[in-house]
Amino acid sequence: MPLSSHRDFEAALAFAASSTEHTMDRLLPHSLGNGGDIDESRVFEAMRYSSLGGGKRLRAFFVLAGATLFKVGALPALRTASAIEFVHAYSLIHDDLPAMDDDDLRRGKPSCHKQFDEATAILAGDALQALAFEVLAHEDTHGDAAVRAHLVSDLAKAAGAQGMVGGQMLDLLAETRPDLSIGAITRLQRLKTGALISFSCTAGAILGKASDAPRAALSAYAHDLGLAFQIADDLLDIEGTAAELGKTPGKDATAGKATFVSILGLERARAQANLLARQAAAHLEPFGEAAGLLKQAANFVVARRA
Amino acid sequence: MPLSSHRDFEAALAFAASSTEHTMDRLLPHSLGNGGDIDESRVFEAMRYSSLGGGKRLRAFFVLAGATLFKVGALPALRTASAIEFVHAYSLIHDDLPAMDDDDLRRGKPSCHKQFDEATAILAGDALQALAFEVLAHEDTHGDAAVRAHLVSDLAKAAGAQGMVGGQMLDLLAETRPDLSIGAITRLQRLKTGALISFSCTAGAILGKASDAPRAALSAYAHDLGLAFQIADDLLDIEGTAAELGKTPGKDATAGKATFVSILGLERARAQANLLARQAAAHLEPFGEAAGLLKQAANFVVARRA
Repeated sequence: MPLSSHRDFEAALAFAASSTEHTMDRLLPHSLGNGGDIDESRVFEAMRYSSLGGGKRLRAFFVLAGATLFKVGALPALRTASAIEFVHAYSLIHDDLPAMDDDDLRRGKPSCHKQFDEATAILAGDALQALAFEVLAHEDTHGDAAVRAHLVSDLAKAAGAQGMVGGQMLDLLAETRPDLSIGAITRLQRLKTGALISFSCTAGAILGKASDAPRAALSAYAHDLGLAFQIADDLLDIEGTAAELGKTPGKDATAGKATFVSILGLERARAQANLLARQAAAHLEPFGEAAGLLKQAANFVVARRA
Repeated sequence: MPLSSHRDFEAALAFAASSTEHTMDRLLPHSLGNGGDIDESRVFEAMRYSSLGGGKRLRAFFVLAGATLFKVGALPALRTASAIEFVHAYSLIHDDLPAMDDDDLRRGKPSCHKQFDEATAILAGDALQALAFEVLAHEDTHGDAAVRAHLVSDLAKAAGAQGMVGGQMLDLLAETRPDLSIGAITRLQRLKTGALISFSCTAGAILGKASDAPRAALSAYAHDLGLAFQIADDLLDIEGTAAELGKTPGKDATAGKATFVSILGLERARAQANLLARQAAAHLEPFGEAAGLLKQAANFVVARRA
């Protein structure tokens, strides 16, 4: 049953999550179980612990929903979605480390370094990043090597110092800067979460060798949606409960960190998120009915409770 | 002046190091220098600090020397060599972290987390790994996308949980296991340092689209040389001085960790390293004179003082 057969967004999201999770499970290394001598299974277990069994898998959904627009096969889309979720999982593991955000909880479970130890968590993150590129470069992801190289190149840029990692660096520096401008926060978030979301939304177009116009439309969608997503995150950090979030709420406010909400206030932040979500959906008009799920996703991103 | 014009190994190694370093410098992100607001240049600086200005660049040398056997152009070889050195640099940054080996010194300078801070060091390592794959997937590395995808795939495997990271996991577990068998230590080292050295030695064959036989010969060379390299490292850890090594010697012995030397003893370990080096060189006979530098490298690896 393909994703496009789902009219209802929540059902489609759940379907994307479970099918991607199934693919990730097959791609992750399995315990060696050689008993006696030391073996490296501990890092496999940490990779599995932190990448399987949870999360909304929004990034995977974007890949799969984008792929349906270009008649991309299920396996290429699922492998690409898995690669992105591996990168996302690695970033959360490293983000949670004591030297970074120092978070003991993730998705309602002990974070990786609490469940294992710091060294194992660092290595598990490192290995998940390598696995993402291994998966993308493999022939099963696409018969055309140029498409595989394109995916690797775009994901590496989105994940690297001029994308996600650069955004995390800014985020750490922002902790001691409650005076940041809205422009600086916007740039920070575009890098930290926006770059990977953009890649998720355009990966289907790369897999489908789409022309420039549809790719640009998806890029514009991702641009607005990524920001809406982040503002909604800031709102949840204020308004959510620990039970809903599976992590400690109010951390940013307590830390005196500048966020969209601290600068704009609750009302204007919410209005801005809603505006961006509508704007995101509008970019998809050229696709008509086919983009129905992605349009619903824009609404979900700002209406979610966790 | 191509690498192959050097008959003398030490001169060729120095040439490989400086030309690769020059390429790495161009590939690394440069400081934004936008002054006022926060910017992510801090992570760029940490990446540059830890990847430039030092090291023998043996892995780069293996790529360049291997590439000359198949008439590969200078740019593809230098970009591939840079990618491997970025992965090597990232692994050293993460290895030195307090949660891992907790080393304050690297190449005679403060290690990355001492010079910057732990969070920046984690991020710099993460970004260097992403940069390696970005470089390999770029068209400038090879006109044939299948070659680029092949390089990405092989490097990702060599660097991941079933290669270098798996070896690092074993290395951490080995710290509390002075009773390890020689077989377990050999497997540990094949993963921890051998996988990346193997990729370095065979990358030229991938770039040159070599047939199976020469690729297998280089693989066999790398297999023996990687182990010789590691035994030599263990010997240096016992016999070297801090000034020669640029790091604290005797750490493994002090920690009571099983090494080739602790099991075989100095004499037998040295004999084994020399045997492996001769064996490595013997695999290159089919290449004749053209492999002269690689044969000398095998000797250098066991004779070096740092």
